[in-house]
Amino acid sequence: MTNILITKADGEREPFDPRKLDISLSRAGASEASRSHIVARVQHELREGMRTEDIYAHAFDYLKDEGAPAVAARYSIKRAIFALGPSGFPFEQFLAEVLRAHGWRTRTGVALTGRCAPHEVDVLAEKNGKRVGIEAKFHNVAGGKTDIKDALYVKARYDDLAHAPESSSRVDEGWLVTNTRFTRNAIRYAQCSNLMLLGWDYPRNRNLLSMIEEMRVHPLTALTTLSDGEKRRLLDNNIVLCRSVQTSHLLEEYGVKPARIPQVIEEAKYLCAPFADASPAQFTHQAHAAA
Amino acid sequence: MTNILITKADGEREPFDPRKLDISLSRAGASEASRSHIVARVQHELREGMRTEDIYAHAFDYLKDEGAPAVAARYSIKRAIFALGPSGFPFEQFLAEVLRAHGWRTRTGVALTGRCAPHEVDVLAEKNGKRVGIEAKFHNVAGGKTDIKDALYVKARYDDLAHAPESSSRVDEGWLVTNTRFTRNAIRYAQCSNLMLLGWDYPRNRNLLSMIEEMRVHPLTALTTLSDGEKRRLLDNNIVLCRSVQTSHLLEEYGVKPARIPQVIEEAKYLCAPFADASPAQFTHQAHAAA
Repeated sequence: MTNILITKADGEREPFDPRKLDISLSRAGASEASRSHIVARVQHELREGMRTEDIYAHAFDYLKDEGAPAVAARYSIKRAIFALGPSGFPFEQFLAEVLRAHGWRTRTGVALTGRCAPHEVDVLAEKNGKRVGIEAKFHNVAGGKTDIKDALYVKARYDDLAHAPESSSRVDEGWLVTNTRFTRNAIRYAQCSNLMLLGWDYPRNRNLLSMIEEMRVHPLTALTTLSDGEKRRLLDNNIVLCRSVQTSHLLEEYGVKPARIPQVIEEAKYLCAPFADASPAQFTHQAHAAA
Repeated sequence: MTNILITKADGEREPFDPRKLDISLSRAGASEASRSHIVARVQHELREGMRTEDIYAHAFDYLKDEGAPAVAARYSIKRAIFALGPSGFPFEQFLAEVLRAHGWRTRTGVALTGRCAPHEVDVLAEKNGKRVGIEAKFHNVAGGKTDIKDALYVKARYDDLAHAPESSSRVDEGWLVTNTRFTRNAIRYAQCSNLMLLGWDYPRNRNLLSMIEEMRVHPLTALTTLSDGEKRRLLDNNIVLCRSVQTSHLLEEYGVKPARIPQVIEEAKYLCAPFADASPAQFTHQAHAAA
């Protein structure tokens, strides 16, 4: 630990912790040599009050410099998810894909009728006879937290759907999923009232990040070889995964110039393929899944 | 009924209905002669697509022309409530005053602890041993409706408070109050799940407008003799009622020039006093209350 205070996304300050950066780099699949090299460079440049976001963006650039673009791309999953915005619809699609990769059958934007009122459910997911209604809460900035108001509203909605007169509208569980974090009160309320929360790194053992990493369902916004306009066109057509852009046919259809297509496919393959230089810690979730 | 379509605050169109204007003018205390005169003038000037708001503002100007400034001021209650914004705090204070005038003991911004989480309640009201937690939803524009999300969230919050471990945090009912309207789904949900809604003109028989009129608890923003800055200073100090500004001492304290004070007090007295030229319909609510 150094004594330099850095500024977090929510504006709070905390001492810079090199271990946290190391863990992030390790999660991204960087080798031990790369990690210690990058952490040392970052520590050397550290200044009081620097924003966590900028520090991590720096580390990401170093990772690129070190000739590991796919590792760097994985490292940027978080930013790639923000790039799904500004509307929340592509995040709903992305979430449905993540769950699909984990064996759920999913539908998005489903109209159901509860005991008291009609509701639109962002993602309806089914697996092993269990039906889950999911509210996806997308934030455009890293500091944006999902608070107790959302937890309360989702709880009341799924209570109403749990008692739907028609079985086709009934759900067994309600989940609230976000790409960022929850306030302490939202977590406290949810734990006490049986509302399931899934956030960027919550709960600790199985969260959005671990679910993405485990099945390598990267958002296509992580690709550096596509322009913003090309990404937007794909997103607008409900194509949200990196692994979905691996045919030249599809890329051509959405206006990518033929000459650039091999590059895009090369990056997509690299990004969605198993890690070549991953640290052993990287595979914890998969080991769990296999066990 | 004419065949001219006018534009409502929410953007929808409907045929202009002179009876509605007449009822509003009658509620404001205008005499029958004034009413028929004003309705005729408005109808003469009616053009396709005119906004309800503009038409009613016009009628309000005519009411002033006819030498009934206090009547006109009453007519403007709705606009005076919007002028409590942009923040929702003065509306919370105002709502507490309206309830106080109806015999409730009230407190604003109260921290309570439910079964699962802490909550801040906008207005806590008690009467005849009943404790009510109230969420005040202030909208800055006439078309802004309170929707089912708010109803759901308030329902879950008051469910949590109904089961509070400490009796000092427990409530018997939850209310959702707004200065505008509710969507049809919010009403449907609330009716089915025992959540009490109070809106500008909902429910039909006893709503925010009727409660204000019955006890003549007009917001001080209805006064035309105070500047916006003076009103703001009073609001910022939790003085929200017209009837609270009837002493020169208080007006001086908040920076009103001594020379202008008699005028302000004159208008306030006139505005908060019983109607002189009210139509019989005006007193329906009071007759109910007395019965």
